[in-house]
Amino acid sequence: MAEANTRRRSRGGGGAARRAERTAVKIETAKYIERNIPNFEVLSEEALDIIEANAETILEEVGVNFVDNPPALERWRAAGASIDGERVRIPRGLARELIKTAPKQFTQHARNPEKSVVIGGKNMVLAPVYGPPFVRDAQGGRRYATMDDFQKFVKLGYMSKWLHHSGGTVCEPTDVPVNKRHLDMLLAHMTLSDKPFMGSVTEPSRAQDSVEMCEILFGKEFVQENTVMTSLININSPMTFDDVMMGAMEVYAKNNQACIVSPFIVGGAMAPVSVAGTLTQVMAECLAGIAYNQLCRPGAPVIMGAMVTSIDMNSGAPTFGTPEASHITYGAGQLARRLGLPYRSAGSFCGSKLPDAQAAYETSNSLNMGLLSGVNFMLHSCGWLEGGLVSDFEKFVMDADQLGVLHGLAKGVEMDENAQAMDAIREVGPGGHYLGCAHTQANFKDAFWKTEVLDYKPFETWEEEGARDTRTLATQRVEHLLANYQQPHLDPEIAGKLAAYVAEKKASMPDAFI
Amino acid sequence: MAEANTRRRSRGGGGAARRAERTAVKIETAKYIERNIPNFEVLSEEALDIIEANAETILEEVGVNFVDNPPALERWRAAGASIDGERVRIPRGLARELIKTAPKQFTQHARNPEKSVVIGGKNMVLAPVYGPPFVRDAQGGRRYATMDDFQKFVKLGYMSKWLHHSGGTVCEPTDVPVNKRHLDMLLAHMTLSDKPFMGSVTEPSRAQDSVEMCEILFGKEFVQENTVMTSLININSPMTFDDVMMGAMEVYAKNNQACIVSPFIVGGAMAPVSVAGTLTQVMAECLAGIAYNQLCRPGAPVIMGAMVTSIDMNSGAPTFGTPEASHITYGAGQLARRLGLPYRSAGSFCGSKLPDAQAAYETSNSLNMGLLSGVNFMLHSCGWLEGGLVSDFEKFVMDADQLGVLHGLAKGVEMDENAQAMDAIREVGPGGHYLGCAHTQANFKDAFWKTEVLDYKPFETWEEEGARDTRTLATQRVEHLLANYQQPHLDPEIAGKLAAYVAEKKASMPDAFI
Repeated sequence: MAEANTRRRSRGGGGAARRAERTAVKIETAKYIERNIPNFEVLSEEALDIIEANAETILEEVGVNFVDNPPALERWRAAGASIDGERVRIPRGLARELIKTAPKQFTQHARNPEKSVVIGGKNMVLAPVYGPPFVRDAQGGRRYATMDDFQKFVKLGYMSKWLHHSGGTVCEPTDVPVNKRHLDMLLAHMTLSDKPFMGSVTEPSRAQDSVEMCEILFGKEFVQENTVMTSLININSPMTFDDVMMGAMEVYAKNNQACIVSPFIVGGAMAPVSVAGTLTQVMAECLAGIAYNQLCRPGAPVIMGAMVTSIDMNSGAPTFGTPEASHITYGAGQLARRLGLPYRSAGSFCGSKLPDAQAAYETSNSLNMGLLSGVNFMLHSCGWLEGGLVSDFEKFVMDADQLGVLHGLAKGVEMDENAQAMDAIREVGPGGHYLGCAHTQANFKDAFWKTEVLDYKPFETWEEEGARDTRTLATQRVEHLLANYQQPHLDPEIAGKLAAYVAEKKASMPDAFI
Repeated sequence: MAEANTRRRSRGGGGAARRAERTAVKIETAKYIERNIPNFEVLSEEALDIIEANAETILEEVGVNFVDNPPALERWRAAGASIDGERVRIPRGLARELIKTAPKQFTQHARNPEKSVVIGGKNMVLAPVYGPPFVRDAQGGRRYATMDDFQKFVKLGYMSKWLHHSGGTVCEPTDVPVNKRHLDMLLAHMTLSDKPFMGSVTEPSRAQDSVEMCEILFGKEFVQENTVMTSLININSPMTFDDVMMGAMEVYAKNNQACIVSPFIVGGAMAPVSVAGTLTQVMAECLAGIAYNQLCRPGAPVIMGAMVTSIDMNSGAPTFGTPEASHITYGAGQLARRLGLPYRSAGSFCGSKLPDAQAAYETSNSLNMGLLSGVNFMLHSCGWLEGGLVSDFEKFVMDADQLGVLHGLAKGVEMDENAQAMDAIREVGPGGHYLGCAHTQANFKDAFWKTEVLDYKPFETWEEEGARDTRTLATQRVEHLLANYQQPHLDPEIAGKLAAYVAEKKASMPDAFI
């Protein structure tokens, strides 16, 4: 009886059907950004020459440390570097010569071929926040992240039109043992999304597990011939390359999988307090790290990264969205292009504890500079809060919405006859309006970027509906997306093999929580 | 006795003295921005040629309306335009020829000569929000603005380091009769601040009052020989010039005072829904308006304005910080530079009802594009809320803080030996840190932009102190600034004459509230 009633109501209710259609979630993924606008360049050719020359001087005179890694020292010695303990001094020009084998751009394949991405050139690929041990939402506040949170972020990433990439450690699932959580994280990316993703870098063995899971997902031959992961290799600035990160990179390079080689620098602490000095160090570190990547396998896909912030000299806290961070991001982009390498930088960076105005100012400053600095791969493009300690659910969807602004900016300005709109101007004339004219009717649907989060309602309506701020609107968006999540299809046989691999691996070792 | 105690305490209390010094408000004003970075240009030369040619076609074929203004029609006829009723059709090239007498840049004098500004070239001058009938703050909510609010905003503008200009109608003082409020507004700018300001444009007679009050403040000869006001002349898009605005402009031009000639366009309503079409209309309107300005007085200082937003096609609401608005702002900057005119655009634009994340995203998008598009005069650079209906106290100080980011970005990158920091990199070496090194000690004080509003504290401290969001921090900043406001000195004789002028004028006419 209840069912019959429902049916009758829905059959008679064209309005309800239309409402349902309007509120239904369309799962769309935009193509990665192909820039049709110039890059913004703050450094002159002369300044770039100075920085490049100084970076070579640093590599030659000061050198870099490869820690607890005798095979790396041996590779460097064989390539012509001078080795003194763990210190590697690299003759002028050697690193730059080694880097020449790195590809200018490469394709990272997704299991859904429509979502594969080309990293490099004029493209920009957007991936979510990476690494926070905490999560926050309006209801639950700030708390340690769990696997349940992780899965929710992967689902939100899958549902976000402007995100091209599922990312990696969207938050640290602290309820899973440290030595096993990479398995659950990869399984989530592989089964809850069909976008490209990142591999584990916390142990060389976990990088190997990542490769093996990809072999199940994509097929062994496919993985050996194609890039299916892009993973984040941090340099311990200043100028130190530890065995864990380098070990993971060795595994990925040998398997032809992509790495981002990236200093994470708080300027004034891990690099000089000046922009030019920091850029010099970034350049020296990237030259050494990427050259080592190519020593492991010439031609392996690799991205030059620069994750650089400034510091609050009163508290020592990292600061975000500052002019100095922007200068470094713009300058590092110029250096990457001169090397002919894909570039990673910028993101939804902020120091704020809440997804409030501070968070949005800082994030917008960074997202805008990321687009204009020519970034090819933007990790952390949504969801980052509190200096990277927190993955925030509301901020994730707020930032993801703003990524649509970047897509619109990157398109550039159309100049064909329709865009010139001379007929419209003639039709309307002085004192008229364009709301109903033929040109507007024909073009309005695609003319403007549309938000899925922000409020444009008249004041009175907005007030009647509860005077909601952005965070409150975002809470509803998160709930709406998660309630409407639909898992992308995956061959049940592959899904079964992945689950079995994870179960077997987990059973093979005791839990470790450090 | 109480006083003696206080004295003893403060004499013994070095800590308290230092605290007092730290929290004392220094009233500083930064020099206007002199850009040491390139402009960002989205349009090719070919695209600019097309837009310029199309704008001339519009002026020639469609023309513009000068409403209720026979003397203007006569001026145009004498200059060679064809007149048909109120329609003015301008032969190809005529407007561009007339504009050639406009100066590339000019000085607007402040009564404090240190605060005079040069508008044009590579400079950017920042002025606050203009025009809202409402104000909002966290305690009082949204309400009609009063003269008391107006005075507070002028005080905040005076205290804001990164604001170079006191602005004009920082909010509409709705408790003062419409025909008298311009007098109180000008008196506030002249006596509560010593920064440059804007004149009234709501009636030609009120523009004349503005000139006369300036003659008291600066001296009659000084005003005739120098520019002491920059006033906002809006075009009624599409392509209509009304007698009130034109009448005010005629007064200012004849007195050698500067005008911003600026369409205020919601794209899709008052201009075509396409970027290229909107730019064409902006160009045609500015050509006509600025040419008319030069017809009134060749050589009068004038700024080309473009205040353009996009529209939400669902609600008809104007939208801000969108990619389309950015494209128009970048493109109009290129057009202004080709004309050799100072350029006004961008601001703290947002559609949000609250100073929340939406407001900050939208504002940051606009502020950043304003800097990079080569804006010379940025009206509305702080305090704008709710599509310009509201001047918000908290947002005023939040945005004004972000204007410091623009100052930092505009400085560009230093490349001298100290900035290269090679000695620091050599001193610290792999694995060290830069916090204590000689280069950091010598440079940290001026190395980074510093916020006066945002929070960089550790999470625990922030939580203990009440987990304040940006708006709450801004409330405290507003209170702190107003509590520490000190009126700049003004010759009492001049102050007396100004007060007498205002009193006399007010007594000479009945109140009018429409």
